[in-house]
Amino acid sequence: VSAGDTDQLAELTEPLHESEMGDLIAALEPSERQELVALLGDRFDYSALTHIDDAIRLEIITVLPNEQIALALQELDSDDAVYILEDMDEGEQADILGRIPFTERIRLRRSLDYPEDSAGRRMQADFVAVPPYWNVGQTIDYLRDNADLPERFSQIFVIDPTFRLVGAVDLDRILREQREVRIEDIMRETRHAVPAEMDQEEAAQIFERYDLLSAAVIDENERLVGVLTIDDVVDVIQEEAEEDILALGGVGDEELSDSVIETTRSRFTWLMINLGTAVLASFVIGLFDATIQEMVALAVLMPIVASMGGNAGTQTMTVTVRALATRELDIYNAGRIIRRETLVGLLNGVLFAVVIGIVATLWFWTPGLGVVIAIAMVVNMVCAALAGIFVPLILDRMKVDPAVASSVFVTTVTDVVGFFAFLGLAAVWFGI
Amino acid sequence: VSAGDTDQLAELTEPLHESEMGDLIAALEPSERQELVALLGDRFDYSALTHIDDAIRLEIITVLPNEQIALALQELDSDDAVYILEDMDEGEQADILGRIPFTERIRLRRSLDYPEDSAGRRMQADFVAVPPYWNVGQTIDYLRDNADLPERFSQIFVIDPTFRLVGAVDLDRILREQREVRIEDIMRETRHAVPAEMDQEEAAQIFERYDLLSAAVIDENERLVGVLTIDDVVDVIQEEAEEDILALGGVGDEELSDSVIETTRSRFTWLMINLGTAVLASFVIGLFDATIQEMVALAVLMPIVASMGGNAGTQTMTVTVRALATRELDIYNAGRIIRRETLVGLLNGVLFAVVIGIVATLWFWTPGLGVVIAIAMVVNMVCAALAGIFVPLILDRMKVDPAVASSVFVTTVTDVVGFFAFLGLAAVWFGI
Repeated sequence: VSAGDTDQLAELTEPLHESEMGDLIAALEPSERQELVALLGDRFDYSALTHIDDAIRLEIITVLPNEQIALALQELDSDDAVYILEDMDEGEQADILGRIPFTERIRLRRSLDYPEDSAGRRMQADFVAVPPYWNVGQTIDYLRDNADLPERFSQIFVIDPTFRLVGAVDLDRILREQREVRIEDIMRETRHAVPAEMDQEEAAQIFERYDLLSAAVIDENERLVGVLTIDDVVDVIQEEAEEDILALGGVGDEELSDSVIETTRSRFTWLMINLGTAVLASFVIGLFDATIQEMVALAVLMPIVASMGGNAGTQTMTVTVRALATRELDIYNAGRIIRRETLVGLLNGVLFAVVIGIVATLWFWTPGLGVVIAIAMVVNMVCAALAGIFVPLILDRMKVDPAVASSVFVTTVTDVVGFFAFLGLAAVWFGI
Repeated sequence: VSAGDTDQLAELTEPLHESEMGDLIAALEPSERQELVALLGDRFDYSALTHIDDAIRLEIITVLPNEQIALALQELDSDDAVYILEDMDEGEQADILGRIPFTERIRLRRSLDYPEDSAGRRMQADFVAVPPYWNVGQTIDYLRDNADLPERFSQIFVIDPTFRLVGAVDLDRILREQREVRIEDIMRETRHAVPAEMDQEEAAQIFERYDLLSAAVIDENERLVGVLTIDDVVDVIQEEAEEDILALGGVGDEELSDSVIETTRSRFTWLMINLGTAVLASFVIGLFDATIQEMVALAVLMPIVASMGGNAGTQTMTVTVRALATRELDIYNAGRIIRRETLVGLLNGVLFAVVIGIVATLWFWTPGLGVVIAIAMVVNMVCAALAGIFVPLILDRMKVDPAVASSVFVTTVTDVVGFFAFLGLAAVWFGI
């Protein structure tokens, strides 16, 4: 790149897959990235841009002339074009769309009109559709003679004159049948058409459930508007699982390429909330300062009760959050799961109560202390189980993403209950 | 089911998709499940069994006569048959395989010979392959006349006389071309063939990276042995993300259908390890019991330092674990990420030091306490960042799954450092 040798560069990057090109771009310094794209010019494969982080993509795109972007977008599949367009600001977007020919522009605009993260945004607006009264031979001839087909397709849709979807035929089916067989006799009902307004996560679940490779996307009048393919859905599944993992770890929508300031800011909120709950737990401890002064062993042992509760609660919560995300948990089995988790909490509570009771008695040579910590342990483990299941369930019912908000509430419960049960019982037991 | 009315039952379940049938089975009581399968007999779609938890599947299969299972497996795609066979004990497996006709048996046996979770286990052993010198017309005629094709396929492989893979053609490509075009002129190189021994997770990453819909599976001599399709890969991606989420939450390989005892046992190990680290942290507190007795405020405030460090460490760890899992983190950017995380830890440490310093000073009206907790906060947040990134990196280098083991080590570091820094500094500052 630094030598500015366009031809050699084009030769080197030509055999790369678009995702490898994306990695190459991400690995370069910002100034080199822009130079690379500028040098390659027409020979740059813009689909590589769909494989890099938003921030880097925007950085490259803002320095390119809109005219060049418009030309590039026409070469791309419509879903990739939408992917690049959707992060731009509105003025820029309108300007670029204005430079794109009418039919293509209408298509892109329609995709962009659907809500963010909807099936309509992710769909491919090019598809192959034939009327039901055609036969296999006509269909094959049509495919052979038509130059303007989508780059890749795995099924052919069957539509009526008003563009309403009536069925679909997989390509392997077409290849198996004789030329005179009518399409309507071999098409299958498309029971799993996806409304364009549907959230992409929901659409992904339909794909997974019915092992689909592609699905028709229909508008509110059941007219065919596009096709959603499984490679887009794989990205969605990966993203959603990723979001849950990060949310459970107390990290927001973060990318590895974010700067120090961006990262600090995005983590700050979560830590601030945690500080609040930690201070609340400290207040509970503060209620018993006289008790602790009498018996310092309480201060030494109290984090054990809170920490065990926190971990048990996190276990139950993780299982609940995942079961909610994959729709495995519903009103039919909620009762059974609640019973199971409570029993597990009770059982593990009793087991660890015995262990910690013995440890505490031997350590401080005070049997009473062993009894107090054992009872507190059972109480906190059961509360942890209840919090671990009810907090996500209630948040889900309130339409709040349980992966994001559950763990604050659960650990608040286990800290407060843990400290209160242990110190409170000790105060009563030892009469201080 | 309880009425034993086979015909009505068959009628009711017939329109169900295999995954819906799976859900229905999972929702029933154990005895009803067996009755349902027995009643439906030949009309039961065994592929439903691939959609339910291992435990329930085994429970149904062990009561069925092996003869019936052998018949059922022949109806299934080979990957589904392997899925059902792989969990059985060896004697049962051998008996069932013995009842299956030779060719099919060899195929299943070969798949089962590949290691668990390898591409060879997940592949479909039926595929369509043609020689490169055929033309499009011959290929289509072959597909039309051959009754023994796989149930679904999306590409045709091109092989030489020794079964070695030379290329592949997507079905849409075949449909676009004239009958006289030769296959070798339209086939593409199969650059992304998957070795049968490859781990399924690695295979899934190839699919994702190159947006594949299916890939050839080859043996050590580069002979074509099967095809891996994206619907199997979607399950793998989902499972792997699931495993990471559960592991990070301190939950092992658990399923929603597990019993109370199984669940208690699987969570016990993790809680036991946590008890060890909690006791270790308590020992650290115990070192300073005289200091705490002098100044109970220390006992009240100390969980705040530990908790903030624990959360900051978990944030960094979550990001690191995910970046390792998705191969986004490698030796090229590790240095940058370590620098970034350390700086983020320092920055957030300073911010929260100021906040908590002021809170502590106002609460206990002791400026010295504010200074001590502020310094301890900075120290612990930086240590948390370092632990959050180095623990997963080191575990990964040692070939231990960082998702499973990281959080114990990270919270041990943040607890020990948090208590030691705060109480130690206080002991020095106040001279007690």
